[in-house]
Amino acid sequence: MKIRLYHARILTMEENRPVFPGEIWVEGDKILSVRECEPGERLKGGAGPCPEEGSEIRWDREIDCGGNLLMPGFKDAHTHSPMTFLRSYADDLPLKEWLQQKVFPMEAKLDEESIYWFGKLAVLEYVSGGITGIFDMYLRPDVMAKVAQETGIRCTLVSGLNDFTSSIEKQEEEYIHWNQAGPLIRYRLGCHAEYTCSRELLEKLAALAEKYRAPVFLHLSETKKEVRECTERYGLPPVKFLDSLGLFDYGGGGYHCIYLDQEEKEIFRKRGLYAVTNPASNLKLASGIASVTEYEKMGIPVAIGTDGAASNNCLDMFKEMFLVSGLAKYQEGDASALDAEKVLRMATVNGARAMGYADADVLAEGKLADLILIDLQKPNMQPIHNIPKNLVYSGNKSNVILTMVGGQILYSDGTYSIGSSPEEIYRECEKCLRRIL
Amino acid sequence: MKIRLYHARILTMEENRPVFPGEIWVEGDKILSVRECEPGERLKGGAGPCPEEGSEIRWDREIDCGGNLLMPGFKDAHTHSPMTFLRSYADDLPLKEWLQQKVFPMEAKLDEESIYWFGKLAVLEYVSGGITGIFDMYLRPDVMAKVAQETGIRCTLVSGLNDFTSSIEKQEEEYIHWNQAGPLIRYRLGCHAEYTCSRELLEKLAALAEKYRAPVFLHLSETKKEVRECTERYGLPPVKFLDSLGLFDYGGGGYHCIYLDQEEKEIFRKRGLYAVTNPASNLKLASGIASVTEYEKMGIPVAIGTDGAASNNCLDMFKEMFLVSGLAKYQEGDASALDAEKVLRMATVNGARAMGYADADVLAEGKLADLILIDLQKPNMQPIHNIPKNLVYSGNKSNVILTMVGGQILYSDGTYSIGSSPEEIYRECEKCLRRIL
Repeated sequence: MKIRLYHARILTMEENRPVFPGEIWVEGDKILSVRECEPGERLKGGAGPCPEEGSEIRWDREIDCGGNLLMPGFKDAHTHSPMTFLRSYADDLPLKEWLQQKVFPMEAKLDEESIYWFGKLAVLEYVSGGITGIFDMYLRPDVMAKVAQETGIRCTLVSGLNDFTSSIEKQEEEYIHWNQAGPLIRYRLGCHAEYTCSRELLEKLAALAEKYRAPVFLHLSETKKEVRECTERYGLPPVKFLDSLGLFDYGGGGYHCIYLDQEEKEIFRKRGLYAVTNPASNLKLASGIASVTEYEKMGIPVAIGTDGAASNNCLDMFKEMFLVSGLAKYQEGDASALDAEKVLRMATVNGARAMGYADADVLAEGKLADLILIDLQKPNMQPIHNIPKNLVYSGNKSNVILTMVGGQILYSDGTYSIGSSPEEIYRECEKCLRRIL
Repeated sequence: MKIRLYHARILTMEENRPVFPGEIWVEGDKILSVRECEPGERLKGGAGPCPEEGSEIRWDREIDCGGNLLMPGFKDAHTHSPMTFLRSYADDLPLKEWLQQKVFPMEAKLDEESIYWFGKLAVLEYVSGGITGIFDMYLRPDVMAKVAQETGIRCTLVSGLNDFTSSIEKQEEEYIHWNQAGPLIRYRLGCHAEYTCSRELLEKLAALAEKYRAPVFLHLSETKKEVRECTERYGLPPVKFLDSLGLFDYGGGGYHCIYLDQEEKEIFRKRGLYAVTNPASNLKLASGIASVTEYEKMGIPVAIGTDGAASNNCLDMFKEMFLVSGLAKYQEGDASALDAEKVLRMATVNGARAMGYADADVLAEGKLADLILIDLQKPNMQPIHNIPKNLVYSGNKSNVILTMVGGQILYSDGTYSIGSSPEEIYRECEKCLRRIL
């Protein structure tokens, strides 16, 4: 399958490469070529004429991008996809009540079929919002793997191991199995959080990381309470404690990462750990604001996630991008803090790398064809002074025209190609809910 | 012109009235009737069958709402519409540099035609995002009045009087003229801010308010610097100082309202002044977070605005609504603070009343037909556990199907009926920019 996307503006997200007019050629699941038009046509008056080369190639499909923007798809670097089933079910409650009285009892009723359909509901939301890859933690990684393979979205699974569900043995099996399950799936070692795992279990996880020389991810320092209780238990805050067990000897990172002390930030920097920030969830659950500006200045790689729909309540990277930048400016008391370009990098390049998809980070020859087409003809994108700033500060889901993962078009102009129709997914979700509620 | 909107879910925003299935009848610019279906069909499995009555009426148009949601349009209670010309032109700069080196020199170059076309660009964004009314302050109220009358959006103009532009005499003329200019236009007394007006000018404005027994609006306590400098000048912070001049004797309110002390909040409560909050702009310019939860608890009416596109950078009430609620929860350290229903009221009912359009606040017989149709069949709105929470926490502009102002459909399924096409507006804006840049 050979696809030509022409008459486009292109933002490859390679370092220091501004938007240029050109076209992208895709073959199979990879980018065959990124082709730039002659200089002088940049940004002014449409994308300009493009290379005549390629006219001899027999294309399976040629797509006129109409001067709109091709860029890498967003990577949602922390989510719990099937939690769409609890969207707007239990909001505006104190955190403890929310978790213990609403979320946990409902999750206990979930069956495989529910996880499957609510996972698919999330995929509708991802692809219509330009998200091409997700870093997903949930009760049943096998079910989300099936969802990813059937829908075509790229997915890195991470274990939600804790004292009550899964086991080290099961995680090792999953690690081996899912890292050989084809190009759409990766699997990262991990656990739910320090506070849901015994010391013994965490030591076993560290040994597994050692065995496979593999990075480890988990919820980390999301609330003050978590940090205080870990310190009471072990005499150390979470990052220091986990690092002392060797959990991060081969890298990895944390979701949320709001309350790190200076030494813990230094551990992140030294080990190249990813701080995955989830600003909408952190506001809505009143958890706090991560020090993203400082992380970025220190050279700690930051990625961005939505968290699950029970706490957010949507899976929308435009919303998260604005929040990352806006909250950084507020936190630093400085309107020049953390500019849009840096945030865009977190939402694309850094997310891909955190997920173990370094081959889906930028648009370049040989990289995976995980890309989106952004409508610059909607009023919120006009005038076009600066495309990255328009994306981060003014973009929204209605700007997504097309979403491609591995050369497959999963969403285009309101139409989904993910194996099931929205109507079927909503109907099945409704049936599942009736069993659960 | 008689329009029937049937097969809908309806959120009237009347106090304590939950969503119900029904239909709305519109005649001229008003709501003729809001009709409820029989109970038992609420919220489950579509909007259900509707009254047979009305079949004898000859409708000019009948619109099948497909089970989607009719609700009052959003009121953007603080904006500077033509500032779309600076969207993403000068971001990520310290506030002072942004204003003095970028915004002011560019605004000085604006001519009437530029203000007109960039105002129209803003209207495209408003109506596609479900905004039916705007509270607009800009250099040329007459031009924005023309834009509102030509496009059909409802607009309350407010004077941006200061020591350098306009005058008390001109404001009085405008006040008389624009309050008689037809149903789409109102005019509120006001000035830019305390720090751009001499004491003498403010006293004249207070005398004008006295003369017409009229409320006064202005930018108020947006930054710490503003409060400090006012206190240095007059020995009082802005609200106390302005109140001592009699500026608020007939009500009114402030835009931003971040740094009020307890006595100033008490003045707001006692006088029923509107606190118009602009959270996206306040984050992006690192100004701070308004104490909206406290205002709400005190009974101070809060409305919501986008501010201009130079500081936001988009005109999107979904973004603002999430921020109002999320920032309140963060600020209070309480996930149960300021629930979605309250935020929705601020974004609709309170905004309308602040603008002097008490007849556009809720959907009810005799009210102005300023309403929107929200797509509940997009994945971010599924499942439908709670519609108000879905709107505030998960909604985005792609959920807006139809926007009606005064019985006129200004936007429907991606098509605009505002007198100019998007293509024409973009082209003219581009021409204006070429003159200015």
